[in-house]
Amino acid sequence: MKIIRGGIMVKWLKEKGLEDDVVISSRIRIARNIEEIKFPQSMNKEEVENITKDILNAMRESHKNENYKFYEIGRLSSLEKNMFIEKHLISPNLVQRPDISSFLLRDDEKVTIMINEEDHLRIQTLFPGLNLEEGWKLSNAIDDGLEEYLDFAFDERFGYLTSCPTNTGTGLRASVMLHLPSLVLTGYANNIFQAVGQIGLTVRGLYGEGTKALGNIFQLSNQTTLGETEEEIIQKLKNVAIQIINKEREIRHNLLNTREVEIEDKVLRSLGILKYSRIISSEESMNLFSNVKMGIDMGIITDIEAKDIINLMMLTQPASLQAYFKEDLNTHERDMKRAELIREKI
Amino acid sequence: MKIIRGGIMVKWLKEKGLEDDVVISSRIRIARNIEEIKFPQSMNKEEVENITKDILNAMRESHKNENYKFYEIGRLSSLEKNMFIEKHLISPNLVQRPDISSFLLRDDEKVTIMINEEDHLRIQTLFPGLNLEEGWKLSNAIDDGLEEYLDFAFDERFGYLTSCPTNTGTGLRASVMLHLPSLVLTGYANNIFQAVGQIGLTVRGLYGEGTKALGNIFQLSNQTTLGETEEEIIQKLKNVAIQIINKEREIRHNLLNTREVEIEDKVLRSLGILKYSRIISSEESMNLFSNVKMGIDMGIITDIEAKDIINLMMLTQPASLQAYFKEDLNTHERDMKRAELIREKI
Repeated sequence: MKIIRGGIMVKWLKEKGLEDDVVISSRIRIARNIEEIKFPQSMNKEEVENITKDILNAMRESHKNENYKFYEIGRLSSLEKNMFIEKHLISPNLVQRPDISSFLLRDDEKVTIMINEEDHLRIQTLFPGLNLEEGWKLSNAIDDGLEEYLDFAFDERFGYLTSCPTNTGTGLRASVMLHLPSLVLTGYANNIFQAVGQIGLTVRGLYGEGTKALGNIFQLSNQTTLGETEEEIIQKLKNVAIQIINKEREIRHNLLNTREVEIEDKVLRSLGILKYSRIISSEESMNLFSNVKMGIDMGIITDIEAKDIINLMMLTQPASLQAYFKEDLNTHERDMKRAELIREKI
Repeated sequence: MKIIRGGIMVKWLKEKGLEDDVVISSRIRIARNIEEIKFPQSMNKEEVENITKDILNAMRESHKNENYKFYEIGRLSSLEKNMFIEKHLISPNLVQRPDISSFLLRDDEKVTIMINEEDHLRIQTLFPGLNLEEGWKLSNAIDDGLEEYLDFAFDERFGYLTSCPTNTGTGLRASVMLHLPSLVLTGYANNIFQAVGQIGLTVRGLYGEGTKALGNIFQLSNQTTLGETEEEIIQKLKNVAIQIINKEREIRHNLLNTREVEIEDKVLRSLGILKYSRIISSEESMNLFSNVKMGIDMGIITDIEAKDIINLMMLTQPASLQAYFKEDLNTHERDMKRAELIREKI
């Protein structure tokens, strides 16, 4: 097993994304299960081994020219597991049952194949900026490839069957990660999130269900997977995302017109604190990063790239930070090392 | 009458003072009244003119080789008056009755002769750092010089008579301006101030009685003027000041030993905010200046001089700020110009 080192740049951030003044990333996740095999939570050791082998074989056969690394959750340190979560490469759920779960990660980190999360198989693609189509195309191709070697549980009436009924149907969850500082600042965010809930979409914090919206970052995703085609789900999500993007841009524009100095002050003080602090918590730094990113996207700061800030947002999370410095750190040490890393990079 | 421009550096700050890691300045003020003449608050126009003329003549005769400028309060703009107060060159009281009050200011700004404040005459000397002796020597010499030409009201039993009985006796008020950030931070300051009150000394804020201790700056001065010689008053004040200085130094030392990173963080964040903000209130900037000055005195910041920070503390007060930019500014404009000036100077 290869030892994982904390990378300096999250790979999927290297390319420039569309609408990246507001959209950080687009993610597609497809849930699939193998016919006639128990759901993961009821499997015994032998069944886990068999299904893992089957999925690995299917991936090997259908993706001969691509490079994937295989990781078993049970053999990863807690630091390594958390680092993958912080980079959004695996779901927090995947690490809950280390005895049964594993995953394949493509070298460019755009594709993760999670084995025995809630379902036997979850295909995830991750693209920078607003790019649901590309993600869907890629996920769909991987799905088609795997389907040649695996029998997916499928019902004519319900569609793909899943462990949790909320995923049954397409098994598709599409989501976009949005940076909405001015919607939060002006209090519009809550209204928008409520409206979004009424049309079958949902908004969550940076690290999924139940997590706080650190750094004014939100995940907008589809709630329902049944009764609509994949293309309809993605199109609806994209349309709503574009409306939110436009609203965020409109408010940023208004803020710059009506409260220019206040916004400049907020943005530049945030930059000043990031540059000078010696101890900084994750929560504080996320909010300051958010202000700085907004300042970059508004043209107030011109000598820093937005993607470097997003990268720092992930790199300064607890596990990634420890991986970067290659040492175990307690909270207080992390707060100092976080400040050190930020000073180094900004 | 010469138009007053906001200077870039407060003159009395140009020399290096003793114990200037804690003591900003030492001030001596002597109250005197002319025999057989009503106290200022009861004078008519003619009496004001006569006494002013007499004092100016006495100064002219006794200080032939020195340069003083004469300012009548009634002919100063409110901006100019406040600027003199902010630089500690005149007392806030002096400007309360513009029809009767005036003052002479020596070119090096170390001496002010206030005419018709509470008393006919108040001689003030101001030195950087801890230097009460020098101030007393100079005040005393000016007093002796004037006494050759003026009959001061003096009683064998009570000493010099003054408008307010609290000044009767020596007519002396000696004070040192102390920067006590670590005594405030650790909560010791209040205990010390209470103890000081019990031995006939008093502690006030930056701009005298009833003002807040902005920027952790306090004025320690004698409360009583009767029953002790000038030398005894000054010696007692100096002894107590030295005790406070040593306590402040001891705590700074302890803080650096036990909470080094926290102190560095506090100091450097303050510097970062001062360097980057676009809008900043006087209160906020005073506290940040205080942290930065402490950082300089502790050796955390090495590329900025403490006296430049003290100078900025005065230069960024409302009137001085407007004088510097040569324009009338409302509160919001001042907060922006203050940030601009700070960025320019730090």
